Amino acid sequence: MGIEMASAIPFNDRLLRALRREPTDTTPIWVMRQAGRYLPEYRATRERAGSFMALAQNPELACEVTLQPLARFDLDAAILFSDILTIPDAMGLGLSFAQGEGPCFARPVRTSADVSRLAIPDMDGQLRYVMDALRLIRRELHGRVPLIGFAGSPWTLACYMVEGHGSRDFAMPKAMCWEDPALAHRLLDLLAQAVAQYLKAQAAAGAQVLMIFDTWGGLLAPAAFREFSLRYLAQVAAALRADVHAASLPLVLFSKGANQHLAGLADTGCAALGVDWTIDLAHARQATGGRVALQGNLDPAVMLANPVVIRREARRVMDSHGPHPGHVFNLGHGITPQVDPGHLSVLVDEVHAYGRTLRAAWSPPA
Amino acid sequence: MGIEMASAIPFNDRLLRALRREPTDTTPIWVMRQAGRYLPEYRATRERAGSFMALAQNPELACEVTLQPLARFDLDAAILFSDILTIPDAMGLGLSFAQGEGPCFARPVRTSADVSRLAIPDMDGQLRYVMDALRLIRRELHGRVPLIGFAGSPWTLACYMVEGHGSRDFAMPKAMCWEDPALAHRLLDLLAQAVAQYLKAQAAAGAQVLMIFDTWGGLLAPAAFREFSLRYLAQVAAALRADVHAASLPLVLFSKGANQHLAGLADTGCAALGVDWTIDLAHARQATGGRVALQGNLDPAVMLANPVVIRREARRVMDSHGPHPGHVFNLGHGITPQVDPGHLSVLVDEVHAYGRTLRAAWSPPA
Repeated sequence: MGIEMASAIPFNDRLLRALRREPTDTTPIWVMRQAGRYLPEYRATRERAGSFMALAQNPELACEVTLQPLARFDLDAAILFSDILTIPDAMGLGLSFAQGEGPCFARPVRTSADVSRLAIPDMDGQLRYVMDALRLIRRELHGRVPLIGFAGSPWTLACYMVEGHGSRDFAMPKAMCWEDPALAHRLLDLLAQAVAQYLKAQAAAGAQVLMIFDTWGGLLAPAAFREFSLRYLAQVAAALRADVHAASLPLVLFSKGANQHLAGLADTGCAALGVDWTIDLAHARQATGGRVALQGNLDPAVMLANPVVIRREARRVMDSHGPHPGHVFNLGHGITPQVDPGHLSVLVDEVHAYGRTLRAAWSPPA
Repeated sequence: MGIEMASAIPFNDRLLRALRREPTDTTPIWVMRQAGRYLPEYRATRERAGSFMALAQNPELACEVTLQPLARFDLDAAILFSDILTIPDAMGLGLSFAQGEGPCFARPVRTSADVSRLAIPDMDGQLRYVMDALRLIRRELHGRVPLIGFAGSPWTLACYMVEGHGSRDFAMPKAMCWEDPALAHRLLDLLAQAVAQYLKAQAAAGAQVLMIFDTWGGLLAPAAFREFSLRYLAQVAAALRADVHAASLPLVLFSKGANQHLAGLADTGCAALGVDWTIDLAHARQATGGRVALQGNLDPAVMLANPVVIRREARRVMDSHGPHPGHVFNLGHGITPQVDPGHLSVLVDEVHAYGRTLRAAWSPPA
């Protein structure tokens, strides 16, 4: 696509405006894992790359799959194609994805000596491929929609690093927190520093929104959540506010299964919270006093139902938020591989159409 | 054990008193899956039985494994060894447990014709083995501790029956609810009738407490939870209140991951709510206005940590509830196979010891 052609496309700033809780013409939408296995063109590129990490580490291919859903759907954002585990991989833990098995680390982190061996990766070294991908995607987007960068949360990274692989209960990182909290805090502090540097580098490389996925925060009891997850999200948020590039970018926190902690998450000073589908947006808005935007929260299983259901359930989510600014439509979790891509067209069209009606009904408080 | 010997053991009514929110000398404790794979004697009996369902369907062996944890630990209740899927199995769906795969139905329920073919099983026929096991266990307990009977919730049974097996998201039963709610309600109403009859029969056969496990309620968005899970829990609770045997038995509802719905669950008129570990008991008590007892809620992963941690975290749970009556100690989910049985001794001792201290600090409001 030539610059001349592209420059004719107006910049779509719905996402950025909604994250700042400013009025928009309609509700912006993007979906978690929008560049993913439900798309045949993604599967083809993934096949060519050879492995998931080979795809993520090749800036040209990562750019290609990042843009694929935008060619099909009228989405309001691009999100970097990458993985939440790039940081521990760059720390030398030996990440691999066995077929159907999820992520696995060859060298898990279990002892004080293991933690001492860890160093914050060089953002222009081991993680340069991420920054190269962001620069390339940003150029290829020609300003059409904003580009979202992201990282895993310190707690979620620690879960995989200590356990060594995915788990239903992540008993090993929890045991570290209970049995040797000083060691757990040493690991989490290092990870918070690494995540902050990583997101700052992403901002410098062209990301326009930053998101942190705290996928396993919801596995913790409330006091443990505050001590081992929320505290380090707050540390990252504070570090980003102190950075020349990152300070102006909206930060979105998504702590899955942690809906009772929305107020505490909003207290980190982030711009927005991702919310899973097990809470009404009206309730989430009440819990956060309207001081953050909300991103979500359609049950991803709805995407496997028929178009009539998809439209109805999408409207239900939007009605729950209401007509005022500050809603970014998304699923409550990633889109699953079995979804018919046509169903995402249905969803995007409904969100934009119904969003226009909803927004038209809103006028700012006098 | 002879009747003469046994009659010398005083009846331990801590559980029944706590479920009625009456004062007790200390906090009663039992744990979900206390007759389970973490016990070598359980594994030996399971091996002898040949398969999980062969074990559950043999009253003598089911009695044997039900009593095993009571021989080792000073637990305050026995719970029938069985499975939540006995009802759909008795409906002829062909239940099997593939090694490491979880439950699987040969004939899942997908269409209106499938639902029409279902009939409430005969409690003295296909499910007689459950009642025989209860009668036998009750006799062998010699009144030492109360016996808990249980069933899966209508929604949770429907999850497995429609999907055909375990799942992360149970998209098929959800799709039925969205695409053909009349069919889903027909299935759930039938299951609610079956669950009510099943629990009434368990009461008549000797169960002294009734519990319903709504394992997958927490997968539903709030409106769907109220319509497809909570509504049928309320229907079962109402049916039990109208029954001569069951009306006097405390009913415990456990809807995992549904902590935002505790008030609605308490409105069913149940005696107690099971709560998972992701909520403080103080918060759960506030949400339910103290009108139900609470059962829970130690993070099961704590049992894999060392005894110092187990004792400390147990006290934290008990402190969160406070000294007033109405707490039954339990894990927030089933005990896992990797737990050292010695760790359960530690837990039981700590709960009883610290419970005595806590209760001593309490005096009834003037």
